[in-house]
Amino acid sequence: MMTAMEQMGVRAKEASRALAVAGAAKDEALAAIAEALVANCDKILEANRLDLEQGEKNGLSKAMLDRLALNPQRVQGMADGMLQVKALPDPIGKVLEGGVRPNGLHITKVRVPLGVIGIIYEARPNVTADAAALCLKSGNAVILRGGKEAIHSNTCIAQVMRQALEGSKVPVDSIQLVTDTTRQSSIDLMNLTEYLDVLIPRGGAGLIRAVVEQAHVPVIETGVGNCHVYVDKDANFAMAADIIYNAKTSRPSVCNAIETILVHQDCAGEVLPMIKARLDEKQVQLRGCERTRAILGDSVVPAIQEDWSAEYLDYILAVRVVDSMEEAMSHIARYSSGHSECIVTENYAAAQAFTSRVDSAAVYVNASTRFTDGGEFGLGAEIGISTQKLHARGPMGLNELTSMKFIIQGDGQIR
Amino acid sequence: MMTAMEQMGVRAKEASRALAVAGAAKDEALAAIAEALVANCDKILEANRLDLEQGEKNGLSKAMLDRLALNPQRVQGMADGMLQVKALPDPIGKVLEGGVRPNGLHITKVRVPLGVIGIIYEARPNVTADAAALCLKSGNAVILRGGKEAIHSNTCIAQVMRQALEGSKVPVDSIQLVTDTTRQSSIDLMNLTEYLDVLIPRGGAGLIRAVVEQAHVPVIETGVGNCHVYVDKDANFAMAADIIYNAKTSRPSVCNAIETILVHQDCAGEVLPMIKARLDEKQVQLRGCERTRAILGDSVVPAIQEDWSAEYLDYILAVRVVDSMEEAMSHIARYSSGHSECIVTENYAAAQAFTSRVDSAAVYVNASTRFTDGGEFGLGAEIGISTQKLHARGPMGLNELTSMKFIIQGDGQIR
Repeated sequence: MMTAMEQMGVRAKEASRALAVAGAAKDEALAAIAEALVANCDKILEANRLDLEQGEKNGLSKAMLDRLALNPQRVQGMADGMLQVKALPDPIGKVLEGGVRPNGLHITKVRVPLGVIGIIYEARPNVTADAAALCLKSGNAVILRGGKEAIHSNTCIAQVMRQALEGSKVPVDSIQLVTDTTRQSSIDLMNLTEYLDVLIPRGGAGLIRAVVEQAHVPVIETGVGNCHVYVDKDANFAMAADIIYNAKTSRPSVCNAIETILVHQDCAGEVLPMIKARLDEKQVQLRGCERTRAILGDSVVPAIQEDWSAEYLDYILAVRVVDSMEEAMSHIARYSSGHSECIVTENYAAAQAFTSRVDSAAVYVNASTRFTDGGEFGLGAEIGISTQKLHARGPMGLNELTSMKFIIQGDGQIR
Repeated sequence: MMTAMEQMGVRAKEASRALAVAGAAKDEALAAIAEALVANCDKILEANRLDLEQGEKNGLSKAMLDRLALNPQRVQGMADGMLQVKALPDPIGKVLEGGVRPNGLHITKVRVPLGVIGIIYEARPNVTADAAALCLKSGNAVILRGGKEAIHSNTCIAQVMRQALEGSKVPVDSIQLVTDTTRQSSIDLMNLTEYLDVLIPRGGAGLIRAVVEQAHVPVIETGVGNCHVYVDKDANFAMAADIIYNAKTSRPSVCNAIETILVHQDCAGEVLPMIKARLDEKQVQLRGCERTRAILGDSVVPAIQEDWSAEYLDYILAVRVVDSMEEAMSHIARYSSGHSECIVTENYAAAQAFTSRVDSAAVYVNASTRFTDGGEFGLGAEIGISTQKLHARGPMGLNELTSMKFIIQGDGQIR
């Protein structure tokens, strides 16, 4: 007897076979969904009101309620997102490599969908539409498992999308939503090894960690960002202060914001006060090493070991003075989550060494880490930012939701 | 207090940082290892004799003993393998993509090593050298965990390789061998999440399954091959018989050998006897569906459900007559391990449909599945054949042992 989750898996697998060869029908389906989202805006907002009422009753924070809230503009935004994804080139079928072997075999490596993708996410109902769009365009069936806070909104959005697929050439089960929001359904999805080709968690560090630890299906770890800026002795100090101010304060709650700065001892006395002056504009709390406090004074909180590993996602910044670039790179190797790091320097050799030796998804010279983003990198859209090294690293667009296969054409070759 | 395995992890991680930027020093190290293997041939053969004596005492099968046995030619083969890998282009640092964004950021996507690779394998001691060569050339530190049957040989080979590294610019801990061959050491390696970037099991289906089920580190599943040949109604029948004979009997014990053939009903009466005649030369046992037996007679063993899923790795072949190519593709979708499948046909549309719709790592038209191999595909060398869709699929060469990172060069851009 199959569980409900296994039945979803069977239906998703079945749908994925048709989707893999659906071609332009996928674009028609995306257009139909966009239209349906706008046409059903009132219904979606009504469902969202139920979630918001429930959320208020359950004492959700204002930030959480804001993430949960939809309005006509946000629904229109989901529809626009569908059309943006529709406009991207179809990744499927692209010939990646190929040639003729000495024995006459024609070998072609082509891009194919992964198959069935699971997405586990938290309170934002727009992820339901955004993730579905990216999976559909890349020829994958998706099983969505959103947070319980947004269940009414997610259920309604999923229904609207599935109804739109009914009138299309794409199977309705290309998009499925897990409506059971108990912990168990999450665990069941993490163990759907026979049907799920990959599981992508989207949300806070707690969710990501739980999925990585518990899942038996392949996982792509996303979005944990303990990012660093290293201010080299040969930095343009004003630029360093600008970049640090931007990378810390333009949006502290996101994964590409910085959490620690490392400053070369030769310039710490001059540049740290400049940096502090900028960060004071936004009341950023500094947590510094002893040498930092010797320069900036007792208003800097003493940093403890935990500060170097912390992902504050807040107006807090750890500061450490280092003896050398070598020490900065060792610090990053030890504490970074492998997301984004930056060196500010005017020195060619330092820039070369930092970019070749720092092992993170995105390594910057003289630019804010806030650019680590699918849109900013020109991928068109993004399903998340991978902080692992297997399969995908950094911002993940449509290509990262695909696999490949070899097609070998012969005329009777044997070995 | 760190476990011995964690200490290996720390050393490997440390070594991997130097290896990532070792460039041509890797080639010098490979040459030094090749030389050392030949120079220490006697010592290696002596260690191997201990394994063989132990193996005979423990009643290992003749096939197993043969896989375990080394001789001067096989040691020379390991050294030659080192030099072949040395001669391949260095994958690291290759620019994969890049360009300038409208805001002036220069973004370059470059190939980098994965970091630390674990390999779990069985009785063949040459894997110790082969796997080390591929990992080293691709800039990865490796932790090798071979089978207990080959422990003396593996220990000696690893020592010889590490001694060779001592005189090189590559860290000695680039290559480490787990000498504890208890089950626990295997489990410890599968859970070395903080240090291992990927674990690749090489061996039989049992080993692979155990690793996939128990590992908490990312795994690349390799080498389970339930491969199929579908004989279309428009096939060249003599070619079909040749391909099937080759794909089944040229080396039945390997993963790219076929295990089931599917034959279109319109040609079954004519082609099945031709196929059987060829397979009879090697006394291949056929296990057929009812329709197959109606054509070929009672010498064909009745196939049961399990036969469709079996990876015999032996002179046994399952045979099923199908109503249509559609039914053949459904059979493959249901039972295949996703390794290699072949259609034999002269029909253009059938070839197109089969190659675009069958979802396996390698899909053939009119050629033996035995070509699914890194060497045959022109990769130069192979660490295994991935049957999963994440990260790598099909024969895995040096590129498949790498990741990538984004390098972003700016002049003060903020967001």
